[in-house]
Amino acid sequence: MDKIGKYEFIAEPFHCDFSGHLCLGNLGNQMLNAADFHSTDRGFGMKYLMTIQRSWVLSRLAIEMTEMPQQYERFTIETWVENALRFFTQRNFQVSGANGKIYGFGRSVWAMIDTETRQPSDILAIDNGAINQWIEAEKPCPIEKGDRVKMSNEAELVRTINTHYSDIDINGHVNSVKYIEHVIDLWDIAWYREHQIKRFDIAYVAETHQGDKIHFFREQTDEKTYCVRLVKTDQITQEDTEVCRCKILFT
Amino acid sequence: MDKIGKYEFIAEPFHCDFSGHLCLGNLGNQMLNAADFHSTDRGFGMKYLMTIQRSWVLSRLAIEMTEMPQQYERFTIETWVENALRFFTQRNFQVSGANGKIYGFGRSVWAMIDTETRQPSDILAIDNGAINQWIEAEKPCPIEKGDRVKMSNEAELVRTINTHYSDIDINGHVNSVKYIEHVIDLWDIAWYREHQIKRFDIAYVAETHQGDKIHFFREQTDEKTYCVRLVKTDQITQEDTEVCRCKILFT
Repeated sequence: MDKIGKYEFIAEPFHCDFSGHLCLGNLGNQMLNAADFHSTDRGFGMKYLMTIQRSWVLSRLAIEMTEMPQQYERFTIETWVENALRFFTQRNFQVSGANGKIYGFGRSVWAMIDTETRQPSDILAIDNGAINQWIEAEKPCPIEKGDRVKMSNEAELVRTINTHYSDIDINGHVNSVKYIEHVIDLWDIAWYREHQIKRFDIAYVAETHQGDKIHFFREQTDEKTYCVRLVKTDQITQEDTEVCRCKILFT
Repeated sequence: MDKIGKYEFIAEPFHCDFSGHLCLGNLGNQMLNAADFHSTDRGFGMKYLMTIQRSWVLSRLAIEMTEMPQQYERFTIETWVENALRFFTQRNFQVSGANGKIYGFGRSVWAMIDTETRQPSDILAIDNGAINQWIEAEKPCPIEKGDRVKMSNEAELVRTINTHYSDIDINGHVNSVKYIEHVIDLWDIAWYREHQIKRFDIAYVAETHQGDKIHFFREQTDEKTYCVRLVKTDQITQEDTEVCRCKILFT
């Protein structure tokens, strides 16, 4: 089996936006699906990990696109593991159109946790470091790694939402893709008529449960860049906790 | 080519709910994809219709399930045209698990419009009634047709939402699947721990644009049945218009 997994998807009509292009949240979803297929086929997927009380946890995701697939277009996502350390592994993505044209890339960082203790777990302890045989360090992923998203205390509260049934995954948390969708929804169609997302970075910090409120604090950090901090108010304790941070570069 | 189209899908993790079952909105999305694949393969799909200024418009959808696919499960949707009249066609769906077990069925009613005038258009005028050669009247779809959803004026306003970028499709309207998701989100996880959706009916009446507000009026019509009326407030005229009506039967 190849170190690089290649999966075909279609830009479904209801996953496309007003302009007929795939929404970035749905592309992110397909990247995570590709990651899942790739790791499952190679013996370290979620389904297997569940049987040994382990789980992958997405820590960061960066997507940088020059073009987005159009409605009904078939596109492929290639994915591979760039490296693996005890507590983190980096997985990359390449998105191509049916004609082979490269549309963009993704970078992700994953940790592993013990699902009982919720503590970090040693990735290399799985099957005696089996992941190491799948490292593909040669294939280029010509986008920058995500930096820590720096924000001041000047960020403005621009929206508060309640979390609902459809936000929540099998772990009882708001799913990774929903955060992306909610952040992208902070801008309206008039904005997206004039701007496209060139790059989207998200760093996950804490988990949100159904019933928690999420507050979106937004700050423009340069002409084309916005950062967004998501803070939850726990429905029981009423405590505020940062849950994730995003950086969005528009063109 | 067979009159019945059969398509395979997978219950993707981020399309599943807290219980690890596919969310009904995502199943609805896959049914509409299956409809699209089926009609495209047979020469009367959306993509072709666009070239002759016609479009399918979903008028009603009913989904009735005894079981929902579980996370990572492969399932198939079969779809076929039960009949076609000048202004409406009925299309059915059957959902089965990988083991062949039938999970449920769907029924849908579609109209065709002229995309320039937005007026109803004659379905049988397309390619001299070509759709008629695909009618499959024998395959059973053992669920009731959807009735008109009757509601009193006692329905209670339970939520108002703003429509955002990700709600809107290429036609500039809230997409058919998003209405289903928003309605399902009117109940919380505590409710869904005790209740499952046995049947969901939706009848589409008018279109909603980004920036319109949607009000959800809910009424319990018998022990296990709720009806929901969605009313939009147009952001420009501030006029209220009914946009769709749903009936949800829980078990």
